[in-house]
Amino acid sequence: MSGYRRVAVIGLGVMGGSFARALTASEAGPEVRGWSPDAEERHAALFSGAVVSAPKDWREAVRDADLVVLATPLRSACRLISDLADDPAPQDATIMDVSSLKAPIVRAAEAAGVSHRFVGAHPMAGSEASGFFASRPDLFSGSLVWIVADSEAQAHTDRVEALWSALGAEPERTTTASHDRLMSLVSHLPQLTANGLAAVLNGSGITPRDLGPGGKDMTRLAASNPVMWEGLLDEAHPDLVHGLRALAEHLADIADRLEGGDVASVVSKMKTTRNWTSE
Amino acid sequence: MSGYRRVAVIGLGVMGGSFARALTASEAGPEVRGWSPDAEERHAALFSGAVVSAPKDWREAVRDADLVVLATPLRSACRLISDLADDPAPQDATIMDVSSLKAPIVRAAEAAGVSHRFVGAHPMAGSEASGFFASRPDLFSGSLVWIVADSEAQAHTDRVEALWSALGAEPERTTTASHDRLMSLVSHLPQLTANGLAAVLNGSGITPRDLGPGGKDMTRLAASNPVMWEGLLDEAHPDLVHGLRALAEHLADIADRLEGGDVASVVSKMKTTRNWTSE
Repeated sequence: MSGYRRVAVIGLGVMGGSFARALTASEAGPEVRGWSPDAEERHAALFSGAVVSAPKDWREAVRDADLVVLATPLRSACRLISDLADDPAPQDATIMDVSSLKAPIVRAAEAAGVSHRFVGAHPMAGSEASGFFASRPDLFSGSLVWIVADSEAQAHTDRVEALWSALGAEPERTTTASHDRLMSLVSHLPQLTANGLAAVLNGSGITPRDLGPGGKDMTRLAASNPVMWEGLLDEAHPDLVHGLRALAEHLADIADRLEGGDVASVVSKMKTTRNWTSE
Repeated sequence: MSGYRRVAVIGLGVMGGSFARALTASEAGPEVRGWSPDAEERHAALFSGAVVSAPKDWREAVRDADLVVLATPLRSACRLISDLADDPAPQDATIMDVSSLKAPIVRAAEAAGVSHRFVGAHPMAGSEASGFFASRPDLFSGSLVWIVADSEAQAHTDRVEALWSALGAEPERTTTASHDRLMSLVSHLPQLTANGLAAVLNGSGITPRDLGPGGKDMTRLAASNPVMWEGLLDEAHPDLVHGLRALAEHLADIADRLEGGDVASVVSKMKTTRNWTSE
């Protein structure tokens, strides 16, 4: 499997924890070390067998690693990548991240002079729950994984793709710009919509217990960890703002039509979006 | 179980089909007849064993029934209830509906002079898929079922509640006004939000295949049958329009904050809605 023998997973939340567990569970899996700023998470990863060691100092976890996985919130990942550039992982180790925006981390990799061994990976999987306790060894099974890398990093990219494939995921290459635009619409806009809907329901005195299955699905993402989102929103793609405005205008327009008794045109719009769902 | 011996289920889609299947699968279940305007659905219900007969004429299905279940779109249910008042079901049969707005059907029951034997039931269960093929015998298992009825209909209400309980659901009484306000927010607003989000994604060239699990959840409801929604939107509660406007304003405000670089206040709002989800 891809030839990696010692993998360091920095960040042991849903993504990092699931990645460590998937690696460890895989046939001929590499030795996996992990690190989290949270002692409880480090112990949980260790006791569950997801990692063989979980030192308190991340530098110790990455020593001798041939693959370093950054699975922290985006801002920390950008800071870590410059620390990693000099010290203490081997200078030929692959550096991979798993965040849902690529422009900031790609810039950080360039600034740190590690573009030739940096591979951005973004699995289209996850959970609104957070922390190691929400991790699952099969989280990435069957999941599409976007891969973004500089052409200099070809050898590293091939190995990373082979690794994801060995874990049952489906890696697919894209560009930073396409990826980030896509995510602003398919991930960040739905996230803020779920938060917005939850805020309106909250403001109307509704509790989650009042929801049926549809309402539950539509607010599930509102449980996501805001700390993880902070860095993503800081670097938000312009299309997120455009998407928010487009949705705001759409909903206000629907309100006008309903108030004006024009149910027929609302139903006609519902037909169009219903057709879209089966595209 | 509730003493009903012959139940007629009018409408064999997800709701009616699941109700017929649950009844038939239950211990000492009553004889169930069904009707759908769609011949294929009638045949499917018959061949699956969900009903013992599925005549072409609904009047034949309700003959001799002691419970008539209206599981059609709201407008049809309102029309059927006045037909049922004179003809051809026994004059002491319970009439129950399952729609997600109660004011229109309660008015129709009053106009038809059957309030004393009408019980409005609304299971908080369903599916964005439509038709008998999407029905399931366990759809209502563990599901909350709102019950709305005139005080004159006490005996019928008791029997209907006992029936839902026997099917593993959890009936709870409410008033028409509370129910309809609640549904406008917890069901109708999420529905139109899903359609709105799908419309914006569609307009941005996104296809459903581009979505991850979060985006899929947030647009799943957009597959719902617009025909079912037509009658509900026609009679929409004012709080649906208020909710749409509140969400539109919220999203536009978030766009302004992101554009103005005020990520901190957006994250703070995310924290509030995250807390709400665990209320």
